[in-house]
Amino acid sequence: VNEAIFIDRLRQIATHPAARGLLDDAAVLDGGGAALVLTHDMLVEGVHFLPDDGAADVAWKLVAVNMSDLAAKGAVPLGVLIGAGLVRGGNWAAAFADGLAAALAHFGAPLLGGDTVAMPAGSAVTLGLTAIGAAPASGAPARSGARAGDDLWVSGSIGDAGLGLALRQAGNAGPTALIDAYLRPQPDLALGRALAPLVSAMADVSDGLLIDAQRIAAASGVAMVLALDAVPLSAAWRAVRGDGLDDRIAAATMGDDYRLLFTIAPDHADAIADAGERFGAAMTRIGTCQSGGGLSLTYMGQTQALPAQLGFVHGQ
Amino acid sequence: VNEAIFIDRLRQIATHPAARGLLDDAAVLDGGGAALVLTHDMLVEGVHFLPDDGAADVAWKLVAVNMSDLAAKGAVPLGVLIGAGLVRGGNWAAAFADGLAAALAHFGAPLLGGDTVAMPAGSAVTLGLTAIGAAPASGAPARSGARAGDDLWVSGSIGDAGLGLALRQAGNAGPTALIDAYLRPQPDLALGRALAPLVSAMADVSDGLLIDAQRIAAASGVAMVLALDAVPLSAAWRAVRGDGLDDRIAAATMGDDYRLLFTIAPDHADAIADAGERFGAAMTRIGTCQSGGGLSLTYMGQTQALPAQLGFVHGQ
Repeated sequence: VNEAIFIDRLRQIATHPAARGLLDDAAVLDGGGAALVLTHDMLVEGVHFLPDDGAADVAWKLVAVNMSDLAAKGAVPLGVLIGAGLVRGGNWAAAFADGLAAALAHFGAPLLGGDTVAMPAGSAVTLGLTAIGAAPASGAPARSGARAGDDLWVSGSIGDAGLGLALRQAGNAGPTALIDAYLRPQPDLALGRALAPLVSAMADVSDGLLIDAQRIAAASGVAMVLALDAVPLSAAWRAVRGDGLDDRIAAATMGDDYRLLFTIAPDHADAIADAGERFGAAMTRIGTCQSGGGLSLTYMGQTQALPAQLGFVHGQ
Repeated sequence: VNEAIFIDRLRQIATHPAARGLLDDAAVLDGGGAALVLTHDMLVEGVHFLPDDGAADVAWKLVAVNMSDLAAKGAVPLGVLIGAGLVRGGNWAAAFADGLAAALAHFGAPLLGGDTVAMPAGSAVTLGLTAIGAAPASGAPARSGARAGDDLWVSGSIGDAGLGLALRQAGNAGPTALIDAYLRPQPDLALGRALAPLVSAMADVSDGLLIDAQRIAAASGVAMVLALDAVPLSAAWRAVRGDGLDDRIAAATMGDDYRLLFTIAPDHADAIADAGERFGAAMTRIGTCQSGGGLSLTYMGQTQALPAQLGFVHGQ
């Protein structure tokens, strides 16, 4: 790894005045007085991405997973700091930096600072990103705000990224829609901002639809009833896997979706449909909140047992 | 590594309301309207710390190196996010979490969020910390503010941590003052806040006194003349190494000092001495800024050649 070349590339990216050219001890940012939304997610080779995933795809994903957290809080990105533990020689670091620049430009998130380390031999590429956003004036939605009587909704389709990963691990290059869902998740910051004032609770689907729904239920102190037959599946998923009960449970436990999962009072349903139309996002009602606790599942009106694994269980 | 136990410990630490109990997608922090100071520094086993350094010492250092950046900008800590790539089994993660709690309490920095990953076999322990601070009302001092005619000052003593590391690598357990300077650096946030309104430029000494002085000179567009005989050496350093020219060059290029290096107009000298007395910190005038560029060295009034290495050169 040539750290100096990588850091020079980061300096070219870090044009926002708050970055101070990456020449100071710290970034100095005018937050504009809004409450701050702060998140830090890591991507580690062999844990979160495959060794042969492209450097630019890895950079995209590093940015996207953190932007997904901002989207779930309705935040506007103010900037990011990167922690880059690099291993590979050759062109990897430069390609990663180029991919980082493209992803940050896409999401409108300036690079403000960070740290770069050439990792010891044998280590995995280890990447961290801190994203800072401005909370919406209406407040950043919490996971804990769902109330009995609210409906549970999700944006987009579920399972595509997990199936794309499984196909990629099996050596397949397609279908592109599934592989891209894994390599290039598309969190929707504008949709998150539009939804934030309407929802009672919101989170992103990162570890699996069922586990993330269960976490909203637990944080909010409500029972959640989720209709598996309502879980939105893409045409590509249906073509590869089908849409039976087992397929739906698989889709709802795979994770890496980076969709928005939220609860609303039923009288906001029209506003949700409007937001979906405005931002070109499918919006699907998949469940309801009731008094009580825990997650339960139905399929075609029949109660179903919870699967042993609701999703990936790891760090926040 | 038992991630679940580690994350439970982090939840016990993260009592600030902005952390949302580490149960949400992101922290939501009221920044109070001040400009934000943002920094992210990594510590990697085998690069920044030795495999047999204690877990609590590593946690201290992770927090301290980031607090040192905040101190150099005169900032008040608002909180931190941690990226913990853990490897060791046994008690390491729990001892690290306990050390983290103690260090954060010492510096008054709440844990707001982060991410935890069990690293693949063979990887080094890889830690990142993002620190967020509130800039002083007078503005966060930059590295670029030094002007011809200003004096260059440094707080504390220089070289102790580097010598402590060298002793530790040679298998020595003492002198404690040097080993502790390496294991437990003591950035001084209160001193940084007191100095911020007085200085024209300020940085922390992290990579070596000479390289950090050179960076201030380059960022400010001034020439810096540094008197090696004025570089403050501790009694422990003098006892182990002596205070000849070679010893002074060694001390000034070792790094890991986490002292404050700053420039002031000469008529602020009394205020600097007062601040040093108030916070129990030695304050030493070690050089001057002149028109021109570059760093030059003197010893007992004679110009000296720059050493080949001014300090550690790596990421920001």
